[in-house]
Amino acid sequence: MSDFDALMEFQRTTEALSSVAERLGWDQETVMPRGATEQRAEEMAAMEAVLHERRTDPRIGEWLDGAEAEVEDEEDARMLELIGRDYRRQTRIPARLATELARATSLAQGIWAEARGNEDVAAFLPTLSEILMLKREEAAAIADGGDAYDALLDDYEPGATAQSIAAIFDEMRPRLVQLRDDVMGADRQPIRLDGQFPSETQLRLARQCATAFGYDWTRGRMDLAVHPFSSGRWQDSRITTRVVTSDPFNCLYSTIHEVGHSNYELGIDSDYAFTALGRGVSLGVHESQSRIAENQIGRSRAFTEWLFARMSDAFDGMNIDNADDFYASVNRVTPGYIRTESDEVQYNLHIMMRFDLERDLIAGRLHTADLEEAWNTRFLKDFGVAVDKPSNGVLQDVHWSVGLFGYFPTYALGNVYAGCLNRAMGAAVPDLDASLTRGDATPAVEWLRENVHRHGALIPQVPLIEQASGAPVSADPLLDYLEEKFGAIYDL
Amino acid sequence: MSDFDALMEFQRTTEALSSVAERLGWDQETVMPRGATEQRAEEMAAMEAVLHERRTDPRIGEWLDGAEAEVEDEEDARMLELIGRDYRRQTRIPARLATELARATSLAQGIWAEARGNEDVAAFLPTLSEILMLKREEAAAIADGGDAYDALLDDYEPGATAQSIAAIFDEMRPRLVQLRDDVMGADRQPIRLDGQFPSETQLRLARQCATAFGYDWTRGRMDLAVHPFSSGRWQDSRITTRVVTSDPFNCLYSTIHEVGHSNYELGIDSDYAFTALGRGVSLGVHESQSRIAENQIGRSRAFTEWLFARMSDAFDGMNIDNADDFYASVNRVTPGYIRTESDEVQYNLHIMMRFDLERDLIAGRLHTADLEEAWNTRFLKDFGVAVDKPSNGVLQDVHWSVGLFGYFPTYALGNVYAGCLNRAMGAAVPDLDASLTRGDATPAVEWLRENVHRHGALIPQVPLIEQASGAPVSADPLLDYLEEKFGAIYDL
Repeated sequence: MSDFDALMEFQRTTEALSSVAERLGWDQETVMPRGATEQRAEEMAAMEAVLHERRTDPRIGEWLDGAEAEVEDEEDARMLELIGRDYRRQTRIPARLATELARATSLAQGIWAEARGNEDVAAFLPTLSEILMLKREEAAAIADGGDAYDALLDDYEPGATAQSIAAIFDEMRPRLVQLRDDVMGADRQPIRLDGQFPSETQLRLARQCATAFGYDWTRGRMDLAVHPFSSGRWQDSRITTRVVTSDPFNCLYSTIHEVGHSNYELGIDSDYAFTALGRGVSLGVHESQSRIAENQIGRSRAFTEWLFARMSDAFDGMNIDNADDFYASVNRVTPGYIRTESDEVQYNLHIMMRFDLERDLIAGRLHTADLEEAWNTRFLKDFGVAVDKPSNGVLQDVHWSVGLFGYFPTYALGNVYAGCLNRAMGAAVPDLDASLTRGDATPAVEWLRENVHRHGALIPQVPLIEQASGAPVSADPLLDYLEEKFGAIYDL
Repeated sequence: MSDFDALMEFQRTTEALSSVAERLGWDQETVMPRGATEQRAEEMAAMEAVLHERRTDPRIGEWLDGAEAEVEDEEDARMLELIGRDYRRQTRIPARLATELARATSLAQGIWAEARGNEDVAAFLPTLSEILMLKREEAAAIADGGDAYDALLDDYEPGATAQSIAAIFDEMRPRLVQLRDDVMGADRQPIRLDGQFPSETQLRLARQCATAFGYDWTRGRMDLAVHPFSSGRWQDSRITTRVVTSDPFNCLYSTIHEVGHSNYELGIDSDYAFTALGRGVSLGVHESQSRIAENQIGRSRAFTEWLFARMSDAFDGMNIDNADDFYASVNRVTPGYIRTESDEVQYNLHIMMRFDLERDLIAGRLHTADLEEAWNTRFLKDFGVAVDKPSNGVLQDVHWSVGLFGYFPTYALGNVYAGCLNRAMGAAVPDLDASLTRGDATPAVEWLRENVHRHGALIPQVPLIEQASGAPVSADPLLDYLEEKFGAIYDL
């Protein structure tokens, strides 16, 4: 067997095992009996041990050396590039550090949750400091002389740099702050949807929404979870949702968001299954697929017309009686502290703030003892509101407690990519609105599949988005879209 | 680290991975999207490859050699015995044969299902012959000069021999054939429960039955499956059931049967989790736990009194209006071809027939070409009825197509063990019937936990049953119980 083939066969089993580990995570968050947590931790640890051993197996290095000469096409070359990148990354992290990080982050999540519950930042700081110290050590090991933050970012958005992201964010911030101020000060303010909306009906509508977005139920399913997520690849990508009886948009738009993620996984060329190409190319591109489904398509005037009719049929006595007011209500911008509950206008401001703070933490320019004050000062500046308590401020997100530094900016990059794709899709699928009005988003999903999904990880994210959108990656399409959309809704 | 500790640590990860593989099987049979079958096959194969590599890892042999001198107690000694037995078994099977068997049995299941659907024995024979040839080769490799059938049996009922089982069966057969004849010829025949019983109500009652048997819902759950099974261990043992709207006993007694299995797994001493002691000691003992729950307890006059009241409340217009007729109906004996639908009187006759036939097949005394005729001749002799079609005869069970030779007798051994345990339990828990009449089987489950479950695989099955029952293993308690019970119901 050639080195290339041996490497591919080895990778195939690794990919299958990694898919099993992911399925175990789905089980834990949806159907696992609550008394099984300790056992599941052991099972996950066993899978991680097997996967870590495989990912750092020295044979990978030997096969890679021999396989370079056996490359036949662009796909082969990209597979070696991806496997090599992962191998170098994994082998640069000392085993001792990997173990310490696993232990510390697994404990930290509980400490963070308790501190948040008690509104007690001080109780979380020693833990955060320890995680930060370990992540800085990990970053230095991977960076191998390069920038530490970029080394962490690279795990989520390969090849991206803090500098390039900062350039995009610097362009976005003033226009977003301005738009936020204009919208908040507008005379015209959308009605808020009020009432109680039965769970069963919400879930039925959520299924209809998923179907409207072409979700393939023969390769997926929908369950309930505390924090909705999508999970799995290729022939089996499942979504989860949640129900808040006073707010049906929570369930419906969570569902559409997760369908966006799953459609990406299910749309990858089936030949790439069990290979390094068989996944989303970056978290930013992944988020672009959930965001374009949820926002540019799902919160459009056209799609909400269909949704308004469905909800009017399903729920008695809604306090909104026409599609225009419904559209405005779906897109309502309100003051709020919490990132995950934010609207399209303010969401990216939440991200930019975290991006700047975590860069400073990793660089050592900001100490954890000063983090809360830095957070609150910045929040007041960008959002015009003072943080009232830690659970609405620095303790709101789980990310840093589990060591996810460099992860936040991918959310905003997803929005930027979604803006680029949406502009191109609008031109390429001119009768899309007519279809959306009938509750059929599949022409959009087809366009995304053709231009994004099917490629998997073959094309790096920037050329992928540029090839799909026919223009350089830029925040302009997103900002233009937001100013136009919210200008119209708020009569600016 | 000592050899003993190194072996235990290695085993711990293997047990965790094996638990993950089992969970994957549960997922496949309950919640997996139907389009995911190919992917799941790859995932299962990857897990099996990892497990096989671990189970044949030469370090096990080295650790075993060193660990013998480090044994401190009976538990340590038994762990080494169990790990050593599995290691010798696994390493005796040539890799080529293991691969061929995996491939052949995976294909054979589909061929068997198609042949059964078409009532076409001839279409299945070449496949059966191939499987048989491979299993004989495997048996010879494991037996290492000993008896081939015993070598296969040993995988399911360690240490048991065909000779010892045949001795028990020879004792049982005449009394069972006689009892079957008497019951079939009796003047008094129970009423059959008729009607349509809504699914939701059946499932609600099934949950109540599981609760009546002390099933721990914090460490389990119930789902639907085509063929009910229980799955998982320690902190997470799940049951499945099915619903036939014309026959609620199918759902209710499947549920109780699977709860019997899961209670065994959940009742094992928690210190044995992730060790070689953390499992049922043999398939026979496992089946005894499902059978005693389903039959001796679940189909008792006392428990059915409670069940009759619950069903009368739940279903309108049942055609049975008193607890005596209900008890007789639950225990009704009717002619039938199918093992899995059989009653307590005839079930073991089905098993004995398969045991004799498969011993002849493995020994080469019976050729697959003559199997159907041998089956039909024997069926007429034991059951007094001629087989009408292959799906009611030689093609009814999946077992041989997937290479399970030596598995069938464990079902009947389970009934024999259940008979022994039931006699002792009746003496040890004298007010059990009063409790069962109130729908509470937990005093029985507690007795079983104390005497069987908690030991896991610590004590081999024969001493375990003898210690629990205070008498040598014998079919007499089962046969006495059956003659007394059915003598009363049929007024013999």
